[in-house]
Amino acid sequence: MSSTNQPSNLRPKVAIVMGSKSDWTQMKECAQLLEGLKIPYTKEVVSAHRMPDEMFRFSETAVSNGYEVIIAGAGGAAHLPGMIASKTTLPVIGVPIKSSTLNGVDSLLSIVQMPGGVPVATMAIGAAGAKNAALFAARLLAVHDSAILRNLIDFQNIQTEYAKKSTEELE
Amino acid sequence: MSSTNQPSNLRPKVAIVMGSKSDWTQMKECAQLLEGLKIPYTKEVVSAHRMPDEMFRFSETAVSNGYEVIIAGAGGAAHLPGMIASKTTLPVIGVPIKSSTLNGVDSLLSIVQMPGGVPVATMAIGAAGAKNAALFAARLLAVHDSAILRNLIDFQNIQTEYAKKSTEELE
Amino acid sequence: MSSTNQPSNLRPKVAIVMGSKSDWTQMKECAQLLEGLKIPYTKEVVSAHRMPDEMFRFSETAVSNGYEVIIAGAGGAAHLPGMIASKTTLPVIGVPIKSSTLNGVDSLLSIVQMPGGVPVATMAIGAAGAKNAALFAARLLAVHDSAILRNLIDFQNIQTEYAKKSTEELE
Amino acid sequence: MSSTNQPSNLRPKVAIVMGSKSDWTQMKECAQLLEGLKIPYTKEVVSAHRMPDEMFRFSETAVSNGYEVIIAGAGGAAHLPGMIASKTTLPVIGVPIKSSTLNGVDSLLSIVQMPGGVPVATMAIGAAGAKNAALFAARLLAVHDSAILRNLIDFQNIQTEYAKKSTEELE
Amino acid sequence: MSSTNQPSNLRPKVAIVMGSKSDWTQMKECAQLLEGLKIPYTKEVVSAHRMPDEMFRFSETAVSNGYEVIIAGAGGAAHLPGMIASKTTLPVIGVPIKSSTLNGVDSLLSIVQMPGGVPVATMAIGAAGAKNAALFAARLLAVHDSAILRNLIDFQNIQTEYAKKSTEELE
Amino acid sequence: MSSTNQPSNLRPKVAIVMGSKSDWTQMKECAQLLEGLKIPYTKEVVSAHRMPDEMFRFSETAVSNGYEVIIAGAGGAAHLPGMIASKTTLPVIGVPIKSSTLNGVDSLLSIVQMPGGVPVATMAIGAAGAKNAALFAARLLAVHDSAILRNLIDFQNIQTEYAKKSTEELE
Amino acid sequence: MSSTNQPSNLRPKVAIVMGSKSDWTQMKECAQLLEGLKIPYTKEVVSAHRMPDEMFRFSETAVSNGYEVIIAGAGGAAHLPGMIASKTTLPVIGVPIKSSTLNGVDSLLSIVQMPGGVPVATMAIGAAGAKNAALFAARLLAVHDSAILRNLIDFQNIQTEYAKKSTEELE
Amino acid sequence: MSSTNQPSNLRPKVAIVMGSKSDWTQMKECAQLLEGLKIPYTKEVVSAHRMPDEMFRFSETAVSNGYEVIIAGAGGAAHLPGMIASKTTLPVIGVPIKSSTLNGVDSLLSIVQMPGGVPVATMAIGAAGAKNAALFAARLLAVHDSAILRNLIDFQNIQTEYAKKSTEELE
Repeated sequence: MSSTNQPSNLRPKVAIVMGSKSDWTQMKECAQLLEGLKIPYTKEVVSAHRMPDEMFRFSETAVSNGYEVIIAGAGGAAHLPGMIASKTTLPVIGVPIKSSTLNGVDSLLSIVQMPGGVPVATMAIGAAGAKNAALFAARLLAVHDSAILRNLIDFQNIQTEYAKKSTEELE
Repeated sequence: MSSTNQPSNLRPKVAIVMGSKSDWTQMKECAQLLEGLKIPYTKEVVSAHRMPDEMFRFSETAVSNGYEVIIAGAGGAAHLPGMIASKTTLPVIGVPIKSSTLNGVDSLLSIVQMPGGVPVATMAIGAAGAKNAALFAARLLAVHDSAILRNLIDFQNIQTEYAKKSTEELE
Repeated sequence: MSSTNQPSNLRPKVAIVMGSKSDWTQMKECAQLLEGLKIPYTKEVVSAHRMPDEMFRFSETAVSNGYEVIIAGAGGAAHLPGMIASKTTLPVIGVPIKSSTLNGVDSLLSIVQMPGGVPVATMAIGAAGAKNAALFAARLLAVHDSAILRNLIDFQNIQTEYAKKSTEELE
Repeated sequence: MSSTNQPSNLRPKVAIVMGSKSDWTQMKECAQLLEGLKIPYTKEVVSAHRMPDEMFRFSETAVSNGYEVIIAGAGGAAHLPGMIASKTTLPVIGVPIKSSTLNGVDSLLSIVQMPGGVPVATMAIGAAGAKNAALFAARLLAVHDSAILRNLIDFQNIQTEYAKKSTEELE
Repeated sequence: MSSTNQPSNLRPKVAIVMGSKSDWTQMKECAQLLEGLKIPYTKEVVSAHRMPDEMFRFSETAVSNGYEVIIAGAGGAAHLPGMIASKTTLPVIGVPIKSSTLNGVDSLLSIVQMPGGVPVATMAIGAAGAKNAALFAARLLAVHDSAILRNLIDFQNIQTEYAKKSTEELE
Repeated sequence: MSSTNQPSNLRPKVAIVMGSKSDWTQMKECAQLLEGLKIPYTKEVVSAHRMPDEMFRFSETAVSNGYEVIIAGAGGAAHLPGMIASKTTLPVIGVPIKSSTLNGVDSLLSIVQMPGGVPVATMAIGAAGAKNAALFAARLLAVHDSAILRNLIDFQNIQTEYAKKSTEELE
Repeated sequence: MSSTNQPSNLRPKVAIVMGSKSDWTQMKECAQLLEGLKIPYTKEVVSAHRMPDEMFRFSETAVSNGYEVIIAGAGGAAHLPGMIASKTTLPVIGVPIKSSTLNGVDSLLSIVQMPGGVPVATMAIGAAGAKNAALFAARLLAVHDSAILRNLIDFQNIQTEYAKKSTEELE
Repeated sequence: MSSTNQPSNLRPKVAIVMGSKSDWTQMKECAQLLEGLKIPYTKEVVSAHRMPDEMFRFSETAVSNGYEVIIAGAGGAAHLPGMIASKTTLPVIGVPIKSSTLNGVDSLLSIVQMPGGVPVATMAIGAAGAKNAALFAARLLAVHDSAILRNLIDFQNIQTEYAKKSTEELE
C-alpha cells in the first residue's frame, strides 16, 4: 500500500520505492526536494527480496498508475532498481543506500553494473544521491512540463546564489 | 562541429558527446542502438579539459538545439557529464569509459559521485553502459513518444526471446 | 526450456542456471564435476533481467520439479541468485562470474551482500567457484545420500594424492 | 568444550564455531535465529590459529557427532571456515566477521576465495551474514525435515508481512 | 567575491578556492600554514557545479589578478581543480577533500587521474593534503623568492627539531 | 635519542622505531609484548620524511649497536621500513599504522609492495600487527636463544588455554 | 651519472629521475614533451632502495645544480618522490608508475599519501601522468619564463585544435 | 616428499613450501636467489586445503628437521602461511601469489591480516615477493652466519652497481 503526499487533484508522476524502511532516512531527502519542486509523488517500501511478488506487481502496474519515472533506493546486494527496470519500460533511477559495512560500495556496484539491455540511471551513494534522484526526475519531467522547468530553474538559481555567498562564511 | 546521423527531416533529440575520439570504440554501441531504435542523434567530441569553452557553448545551446537528453561518455578523471549537467537543465546520462589503468573505476567514481544539486544518470562502465545509455534515453523519450515506445518494446521482446533460446546453445 | 544431462531414470536433484550463455565457459566446470560425481542435473539460461517472468516461474516450480539445490551463476550486477532465493525455500548457491570490467568484484558483492533474511551461499569468483558449487551441492546431498558421499570422498582422496605428488613436478 | 543450547532430547544438527569470543556479538544473531526456527545447535570458540589441534579434532569428529552442517564465523585472515572444510565432508557455511580495520573485506576475501576443490558457502559480512547462515542451514535441513520447512516458511511469511506493513512507518 | 587575508600592501600570489564552504574545515590548514610562511593569499568558495560561470571567470582572470599558483580543494566527483587547470596556464594544486561516504577515494581519483594534457598537482586526502598544498606552493614560490625560501627552511628545521624531540614523549 | 626499557645489563637486540609519536598508541602493543617475553628493546621516533638524516644514521649504526632485528611502524605513505631496509642488512619488520583516512590500506601497500631486492617483513594493519611484530622478532631470536624460545612457547600455551576457555564466556 | 639531453649552453632546470630503468617506457613521455616545449632537462636512474646514498646526494645537490623542479617516477612501494622531497626545498612532482600487479594503485598511494609537512605533487598513474609532469613543470617555470609560457600556450592551442577536429574522425 | 637442492653435506636451513605446483612459476625466483646466496633449502608442495594432515606434519617436524625459517607461497584464500605459523615457533615468511582473478589482493589480505598472536612476515605480491622472501631469509640467517652475510652484502653491492649503471641504458 503506497502513500501519496500531495493535493488529491494531482496525479503522482513519480514513484519513490525503497527496499527497507531504514532506507527512508536517506530517501526522504528525495521526497522533500520533490515537494519543494511541487512534483507529486508516492512513496512505498517494496523489498525485492522480501516482497518479490509485490515488486513485480508494482512494476507491472507502474505505467497504468500514471507514473512517468520511478526512483528506487536500495542497499547492499541492491537488486530493487534493476529488477523493476526489467519489468517496465519506464525510466528507473537507482539510489545506492550507504550501507553500514561497505559504505555503499556494494550498493553502488549492484545498481550501476547492469548488463547491456536493462538500464538503471544510478545516482551518488546516500543522501546526495537521493537528492539528485529528485532533481534528475525533475529534469526528465521538465522537458514536457514548463511549470516544473520553472521550479527547477528557480532551484538552481537559489543554489547558485547560496554558493556564491558562502565565501563570506569562511571563518 | 557535430555530425548528425539521420534523415534530414528528423531533428535529433539526443546528443552523444565524448571526451576523446578514443572513447568512440565504446560509445558507438550507444549510437548503433539509437539507430536501431530509430532515434535521431548527433555525435561529437567535446573535451571538458581540452575544449572547455566549446563544452560550455555546447551545454548552453543544447536546449535551443532541440535536444531532450544528452549522453556523455568520459574516462579517467571524467568531468564531462557533470560539467555539462551544471550548465543545462536537460537530463544528462553519463557513461564511464573503461580506462586502461584502473578499468574505469576512476571514471565511474568521477561521474557518479556528484554532489547533491547537480545530477548525472550514471550507467555501467564501458560498452554495456554505452548501450544502456541509448536504452535509457529511449525510455525517457518513450514517455511522450509512442513510436519510440513501440520500438523499445520490440527491442525488449527480441532480447527476451533471444535469451530464452540461448539454453540450446550451451555446449 | 532446460536441458537435462543424465540417464533418464535419474531425476535431477541439482539445477544449474546462469544469466547468460556467455557464463557457460565458467559454469561448465560445475557441470563437468557434477557428472564426475554422478549427480544428475539440469542446466538452463535464466536471465533475471531479460527473462524475469521465466525466472519467477523457474523458482516457483523448483521444489515441485524435485530439485534439492539450485546453483546460479551471474556476472556484473548479478541479481539472479538472490532473486531466486527470494522465491524458493531451496538452498541457492551463487557463483560470481568473472566479469571483463571489474574482474568479478561487482558480481561477488552483488551476490554475497544479501540482506539478513534471504541467504545465498556464495562461492569464489569464476571457474574455481563454479567447481566448488558442484562440490558444495555434493556435500549437501551427501548428508542423506551415501552414494554421493562415497563419490565425494573418492574425489577428495584423488585430489589429495594428486597434490601430494605434485612436488615431483617442480622443475 | 562446546555448549549446547536446547532440550536434551534433541541432538544438535548444526554446530556454530567462531574464531574468537569477540565474534559472538555478530554470531549470536545466528544462534537466536536457529532457536527461533527450533533447530538445535552447539556453539563453540575454535580458533584456527590459536587452537589448531582442537580445530582439527572438531572437524574430524563433526560427522560422528551428528552435525549435518557447520557454521563458522571468522575475521581478518579468516582461515577457520576453509580449514574446517578441508577436514570434513560436511557442508561448511562461512560468516565473514566485520573487522575493525578493513570492515570485513579481508574476512570476506579470505573466506570466499577458496581454491577449486574445497568449498565454503560464504554469507554477507557481519550480523546480516550471521543471520543468513542460520537461514541457509535451515534451507539445507528443510529439504529432508518438514518441521523445519514449516518453521522456515512461517519465518518468511512473517518477514514478508512485516516488510509490507513498513510503508506505513515512513515518516 | 574572494576575501584576502593579509596586509593590504601585499598582493596575494596564492588563491585558495574550494567547492563548498564545508571544505573549509580541511582547507583552513592550508590557509594557516600560508600565513605562518607569510605568503599572502585569497580564499573563496568557487563551486564547479553550482557556479560554473564564476569558476570560468575566476580561472580566466587568475593570471591578471597576479596569482602565481592556485590551490583548489574539492570532494566527491571533484571537478574543480581539473576544470580550473583547463582554463589557465598557472600551476593548479588539487586537494582531495575527505568525503563522508568513500573517505575521499572518489575525490582523489577525480582529481589525480587527469588525462594527459592538463595537469593537476594532487596532494594527500584531507587536512594533511591541505597543509602540503601550502608547503608545495611555498616551494614553487621559493625558487624565485628568497624570503619565502628562508621561511620554508625555518619551517622545515622546526619540524625536524620537533620530530627529534618526540621520542621523549613516548609513554 | 632512543630510550631503552630494560635492565641495564641487557643489551637491546630489538629496536622499535616509528614515524611519529602518534603511532605510539598502536606500537606500544609491540613494546609491551617484548617486555612480557623479556626481550630488551629500544624505542625511538625516527621520521623518514622529517628526519631523513637521522634515519640514515640510525640504519647505518644498527648493526654496530647490537640490534639483531628492527621493527618499524609507519602510516600513510609509509616509507620508514623500506628506507631502513635499504640501508642495513638486518631483518626489518614493518607495521602498517592504521591511518585515519584510508584505514591503513595506504600504509600496508606502501610497506609491503617493496621491489625485488629489498625485503620488509610486513605485519597486519594496526595494533594486531604491532603485537605480531614483537612475536615475529621473538621467533627470529628464539632460533638461537633458548630462553626466548621458552618464553615464546609459554606465551603460545597461555594463548591457547585462554582461547579454549573462551567458549564458556559466550553469552 | 645523469645524462643531459639538450644544447650545452642551456642549463637544465628540470631533473627527471626514476627508480628503475624499466620505468623509462612510461617516463619518456615526460622527456619527449619537455623537449617539445624546449625545456632542458637531465634524466637519471636513482633508486631509493638500491641506491639510497646516491639518492640523498642527488637531493642535496639539486639546488646547487640549478634545478628548479624535480620529476620523480616510481612504482610499487614508490618511495623515491617522497624521500627526495624530504631532502630538498625544491618542488617535487611524483609520477606513479603503472605496476604489473596492482596497476599502479600501490604506486599512487605510496606517492600521494605523504604526511603533512613534506609535499609531493602527484600526477596520474602511468604515461598520462608522465606527460602531465612535463606540463606541470612547464607551468611552474612559465610563471617566470615567458618563452616557456609561449611554448606552453602553443601546445595547449594545438591540443585544443586537435580535439576539436576529432569529431570528424568518429567512424 | 620434499626435494632438496644442494650438496648433500649441507643441511637445509630454509624450507620453501607452496600451496600448488602452479605457484612454482613465481616461487622459483625465491629458490634461484637462495641458490645464488648459497643457502641450502628444500622445496615442497604442501596444500593447506588438499593436504591438511601433511601440512600439520610438515609444521610439527620443521624444527626437528633443522629448518630455521619457512617460506610459504599461497594464492587466493591463502591459508598456508598462517596455518603453518600456528603450528610452529619458527619464523614463517608468506608470499602472496598473484592470482588470476584479483591479482593477488585476496592472497595478500589472507596472509597479512593475521590476528594478534600468530605472526606471518608478508612479502610483496608475486615474483618480487618471492625474491624478497629469499633475501629476508638470508637477513635472518646472516645475523648468526657470517658466510651468508658476506654473500648478502655481495648481492646488495652488485645490485647497487647495476642500478647505478642503468642510467646509461635509458634510450
